[in-house]
Amino acid sequence: MSGMDLQGKLRVVPDFPKPGISFKDITTLLKDGPAFRECIRLMAAQCRGREFDLVVSPEARGFILGGALAYELGVGFVPVRKRGKLPWKVIRGEYKLEYGMDTLEMHVDAVSRGQRVIVVDDVLATGGTISATLDLVEKVGGVISAVAFLIELTYLPGRENLRKYDVISVLKLES
Amino acid sequence: MSGMDLQGKLRVVPDFPKPGISFKDITTLLKDGPAFRECIRLMAAQCRGREFDLVVSPEARGFILGGALAYELGVGFVPVRKRGKLPWKVIRGEYKLEYGMDTLEMHVDAVSRGQRVIVVDDVLATGGTISATLDLVEKVGGVISAVAFLIELTYLPGRENLRKYDVISVLKLES
Repeated sequence: MSGMDLQGKLRVVPDFPKPGISFKDITTLLKDGPAFRECIRLMAAQCRGREFDLVVSPEARGFILGGALAYELGVGFVPVRKRGKLPWKVIRGEYKLEYGMDTLEMHVDAVSRGQRVIVVDDVLATGGTISATLDLVEKVGGVISAVAFLIELTYLPGRENLRKYDVISVLKLES
Repeated sequence: MSGMDLQGKLRVVPDFPKPGISFKDITTLLKDGPAFRECIRLMAAQCRGREFDLVVSPEARGFILGGALAYELGVGFVPVRKRGKLPWKVIRGEYKLEYGMDTLEMHVDAVSRGQRVIVVDDVLATGGTISATLDLVEKVGGVISAVAFLIELTYLPGRENLRKYDVISVLKLES
């Protein structure tokens, strides 16, 4: 819980990226120093109840929150990227977009067997990108400690789709 | 200065993304909690000698460092993105790649006139991406307080190309 109106710092952009989607723009919150700080502080407080060795995030907005959270928690950060961006040996996972498929990659040595991982992204919608990220971590033997979001869209089945996992969110939006 | 061998945490990948380029892979440093923390701490210590209201970074690796640095400094964070990723009104800048051009965008209301900005990215090579980022900040009236990098490749003319600005780097690599 926060005394700050964090939700009021979001900007809702209608019909982005396509008609009918009401996009939650977090940039108006991120550029507000005290609000950004409070978000990371609240996320970290929830994470501290778990055991963890690493933070992993998919690109690109996830990097902003994941980088700050890893720093606050004093653990390392691992980026999961789109195809061809990582320079070393990778494992690869595909996930479904509305039209077609996309690919995510992670370095094969990014997470060691048995390391406990908090996976972080900005928004939990249906959980497609994050599921692909979780798969990559588990494929190399990492253990998912929690999945943390700045925003959870409770009117979409994201939490249900991630029901195997401990899901954390700072802001729950009902519409 | 650091007592830690931060440079030793980097992985050098030959011939990535193309033959002849020796890529400095920061993921091996980022995944090491104490090393990542030390990098941000050292960058923040140098920034504290300047005045600043905001951190601005280009996607995507810049987000990891910029997000953590903004959090540590207690200021807001502004993402500069590739074309079509930002949902609101943007200003746009082009910059040269080896073959052709690429585009960066920033929300028109991301930086207010007179706000003092620290621009952050992972590696200073020739400074092309960062120059485009600096242009966007200045176009909307922001004042560049410093330009901060985790790594500076001193054998390339990045610092010379940014000579109008106060350039900070944590690690200087001579080859």
